[in-house]
Amino acid sequence: MSEELPPPVAALFPARGLRERLDDRLTRELALAGERIAGGSVMPTLDMAGFRRELAGFDFESPRPIEPLLEWTIAQLEHGVTHMTHPRYFGLFNPAANFPAQCADRIAGAFNPQLASSGSSPAPVEIEAHVIRAFARRAGLPADASGHFTTSGSEANYTALVCALTRAEPRFGEDGVRAFAAPLAMYTSCECHPAWFKIAHQAGVGRAALRLIATDGHGRMDARSLAERVAQDRKQGLVPVLIAATAGTTGGGMVDPLAACAQIARQHGLWCHVDAAWGGAALCSDRLRGLLAGIELADSLTIDAHKWLATTMGCGMFITRHPALLSEAFRVRADFMPSTAHSLDPYLNSVQWSRRFMGLRLFLALAAAGWQGYAAHVERAVEVIEHVKARLLAHGWTAANDSPLAVLCAVPPPGNPGVGEIVRRVRASGRAWAACATFEGREVVRVCATHGETSLADVDELVAALTAAA
Amino acid sequence: MSEELPPPVAALFPARGLRERLDDRLTRELALAGERIAGGSVMPTLDMAGFRRELAGFDFESPRPIEPLLEWTIAQLEHGVTHMTHPRYFGLFNPAANFPAQCADRIAGAFNPQLASSGSSPAPVEIEAHVIRAFARRAGLPADASGHFTTSGSEANYTALVCALTRAEPRFGEDGVRAFAAPLAMYTSCECHPAWFKIAHQAGVGRAALRLIATDGHGRMDARSLAERVAQDRKQGLVPVLIAATAGTTGGGMVDPLAACAQIARQHGLWCHVDAAWGGAALCSDRLRGLLAGIELADSLTIDAHKWLATTMGCGMFITRHPALLSEAFRVRADFMPSTAHSLDPYLNSVQWSRRFMGLRLFLALAAAGWQGYAAHVERAVEVIEHVKARLLAHGWTAANDSPLAVLCAVPPPGNPGVGEIVRRVRASGRAWAACATFEGREVVRVCATHGETSLADVDELVAALTAAA
Repeated sequence: MSEELPPPVAALFPARGLRERLDDRLTRELALAGERIAGGSVMPTLDMAGFRRELAGFDFESPRPIEPLLEWTIAQLEHGVTHMTHPRYFGLFNPAANFPAQCADRIAGAFNPQLASSGSSPAPVEIEAHVIRAFARRAGLPADASGHFTTSGSEANYTALVCALTRAEPRFGEDGVRAFAAPLAMYTSCECHPAWFKIAHQAGVGRAALRLIATDGHGRMDARSLAERVAQDRKQGLVPVLIAATAGTTGGGMVDPLAACAQIARQHGLWCHVDAAWGGAALCSDRLRGLLAGIELADSLTIDAHKWLATTMGCGMFITRHPALLSEAFRVRADFMPSTAHSLDPYLNSVQWSRRFMGLRLFLALAAAGWQGYAAHVERAVEVIEHVKARLLAHGWTAANDSPLAVLCAVPPPGNPGVGEIVRRVRASGRAWAACATFEGREVVRVCATHGETSLADVDELVAALTAAA
Repeated sequence: MSEELPPPVAALFPARGLRERLDDRLTRELALAGERIAGGSVMPTLDMAGFRRELAGFDFESPRPIEPLLEWTIAQLEHGVTHMTHPRYFGLFNPAANFPAQCADRIAGAFNPQLASSGSSPAPVEIEAHVIRAFARRAGLPADASGHFTTSGSEANYTALVCALTRAEPRFGEDGVRAFAAPLAMYTSCECHPAWFKIAHQAGVGRAALRLIATDGHGRMDARSLAERVAQDRKQGLVPVLIAATAGTTGGGMVDPLAACAQIARQHGLWCHVDAAWGGAALCSDRLRGLLAGIELADSLTIDAHKWLATTMGCGMFITRHPALLSEAFRVRADFMPSTAHSLDPYLNSVQWSRRFMGLRLFLALAAAGWQGYAAHVERAVEVIEHVKARLLAHGWTAANDSPLAVLCAVPPPGNPGVGEIVRRVRASGRAWAACATFEGREVVRVCATHGETSLADVDELVAALTAAA
C-alpha cells in the first residue's frame, strides 16, 4: 500500500472547467443535430459496413479524448437511427422527448440517487409516489391506490400478473405455480401487445396459458367471447387468473370494453388489469378521458410516460388499488438496506432493486404543463390524425379502424402495390415514417401522431408520400 | 376538426433559445450543487414535513414556469437524498456517476432512440452489442457469447433463472413450471443478494426453492455443502436448475469459489450463473481480474455498470455463452415491429421491450478511460479501503472479512456502544456514510469505496468519525 493515493481517473472525473465546456458544447451540438434531423431523412442513412468497421476499432486498449468521442457519437446517432424526434415520424408509440423530461434526466444523472429505498432517497421516493397517486386519482381509483415507476409497459404488465398469481393462491409466493391445483389461464385480446407471450413464459405460467380472445370486428376484445372462454376454462378444471384489457391497442388504438371486462373478472374472481400503456395519456384530457370509462374498476393499470406523455425512454407506471399485495409479492428482508418501510420502499414493492429516479421526468413535465398542457398535447395528436384521415379519404383511401385516439389504420385504394411496398417506398423516400400492421385481418398502413410539434405541412408531406407510393 | 392545428405545447416543447438558456443554467447550477454537497452533510437534511406540504401543493391544475421549477427540484435533491456523489459516501454499491456516462444520458435523451430493435436503431444496438462482447471476452467467455443491457443486476439475475428453466425443460416455455416433474431447487449462498427471493417468487418457481448454502467462515459459498445439497435434493426427487455464485458479495465483497461452483453445476447439468454485479468491474484490472478466476466457466454473468463502473443508474448487463437460448426464452412475433433479427433485436432477446439506450453510458466511459482507466479506478478504490483498514486497525478495530476488493467489514474495539449506534452517530454527524451489515453472523460496520475522487483526507475524516462514535 502506497502512502499516497493515485489521482482520480481524469477521463472519468474531469475537472469542472472541462465539464462545463463539454456540457455547453453538447447543448449546442444536440440542438443543431435536432434541426438537421427535422430537415432531413426520417430513416437511418448510415453506411453500416463502414460503421461496423469503425466500431470494431474500439478495442478500449487506449483511452480516447472525450471531445471527438462525443462528436463521433452524435454523428453516428444522427445517421444511425430511425428518428423518433422527426416531426414526420408517424410511427410506433415512441416519442420525441419533451424538454422538462430531458432536464429531469440531467438532474437525476448528476445526483444519481438510489431510488430503491426511501431511506436513501426520501424526497425522490415521495415525488414518485405523488405522481403515481395523481394518475391513480385521475383514473378514478381509490385514494389509497399506489404503485411505482417501471422501465416500461412490459414490466408493469408483468407486475400485474405476479400480483394476480399472488392473490389467487396464498402459497404461490412460497411454492410457485405448482401451488395451483391445475394449469392456469390468462386472457387478453388478439390485438394485445405480444409482450404478454414473453410475460407468460417468464412468470412460469407458460405461453399456452395465454388466451387471445376474438375481437368484435372493430379491434376491441369481444366481451361475450371472453365470458364464454373463462366459463369454459373453469368448467374444464383450469384456473383463470387474469384478464388484461387494452386501452389503446398497438395496432389500431382501440379501447377494449373496460367495464364489461371488469365485470367478468369480478364475477369469476379474476384480477382485472388494464394495459393503458399508450392510451392512458388520454386521462389528462377532460374531453377524451371518457373514452376510458370503466378503467376505474381495474385492479391495476399500466401507463407508459415514454409513450404519449413524451418523456424519455423508458418510464412506465404500474398502479394498483391493492397496495398490500405489492408488498406481499415483492417482500424481502435485507439487513444492509437503509430502511424497510414496506408501504413506501420501491425495492419492497416492485420488480426492480437498484433504480434510477425515473419519475422525475413525468413530475417535471406535468408540473410545467399541468393537466391542461398534457390535455392540449394529447388532443393535438388526435387532431393531427383527423387531418391525415380526411386527406387520405379524399384520395380514395379508407380507414380500417375507427379509433377516437391518435392512430389511423389506412387502406390504400384498389390497384395499389400492396401495403408492404407502399410503406417501403415511403420510408425509402425519407420523407416520413409509417408502419405496416394488421387490423382485423387486413393489412393496413398504420399512422400514429407521436410528435408534439408535427404541423399541417408535415401532414401534407406524409400524405403526399403515401399517395405517391400507392 | 379545425382548419388549423393548435400550436405545440410550449411548456413541453419550448423554443430553442429558452432551452439553451435553461441547459446552460443546469450545467452551472448542478456543478455548484455538487461542490456544496462535497463540502456539506452526506445525509439528507430536508424537513420532510415541510417538503410533503409543498409537494401536496403540486396538484397540476395550473402550469408552473419551468425555471423556478428546476431550481426547486435541485434544492430538494440537494437536501433530500443521501449523497452518493459525496466523496465520503462509503456506502452501498451506488456510485457518483462518471462524466462520460452523464454525457451519454444527455445524448440518449435528446435522440431518444427506441432500443427494442436493430431495425429502429441499428447503430445503438451495435454499440451495445460491442460493449457486451468486450466484457464477455474480458471475462474469458467464448467469442460468440452475447447478452444485453438490463436495468439492474436483479433483472440480469432473473434473466439467468428464466434461461436456466428454459434449458432444463423444453416444455417450460409453453407449459410453465408445471412442465417439470417435481419441485425445483436453485442454489446460492447465505451471503447472496436478497433479490433472489423476489426472483424465485416472480418466476413462479417459489421462494421455497431457494437454498442458501452455508459459507466457509470467510463469507464464501462452501463448495462441499453446495455439492451435498444438490445431491441430496436430487435424491429426494427435486429438480435442481441453477447455481448462482456471487463475485463480490453485498455484505463483505467476497468471491465464491467460481470454478468449483461451475464444476458442480456441470456435473449435475445445472445452469451456472455468476452474479458479479459489483465485483465484475475487477475484470478491467489485469492486477485484480485473477480474483475472479473460474468466471470464464459460467453459463451466464451479471455485471452492473452502475456499481463499480460508475455509470448513472440503472445500467446492468446480462452476458451468456448461450445466445440461442436467449432467443428461445424471449421469442415473440410482432408484425408491427420494424425487424425480427432474432440474433440482434433486444426485444427478442431480453425481458424488456421499450428500452432506453442505456449501453451508451458504458461505451463512452470505457472509450474515454480505456481498460487501463477503469483498472486505475478500481485499483484506487481497493487502495482507499486498504487505508481505511490500516487506520482502523491502528485504533484497535478488527476486520471481520478479508476481501481483496473494496469492502471492509470492520468490528469496533471492545466496550463500544454497538454497531447500530456507531453507524447512527456517524451518519448523524453528516461527516460520512457507512452501513450496518452482518458478516458470518457478526454485526459489522461496512465501509465500501464507491467514489472515484475520495481522498486520503476523506479517509481520515471517516476514520475520525468512526472512532469518535465508538
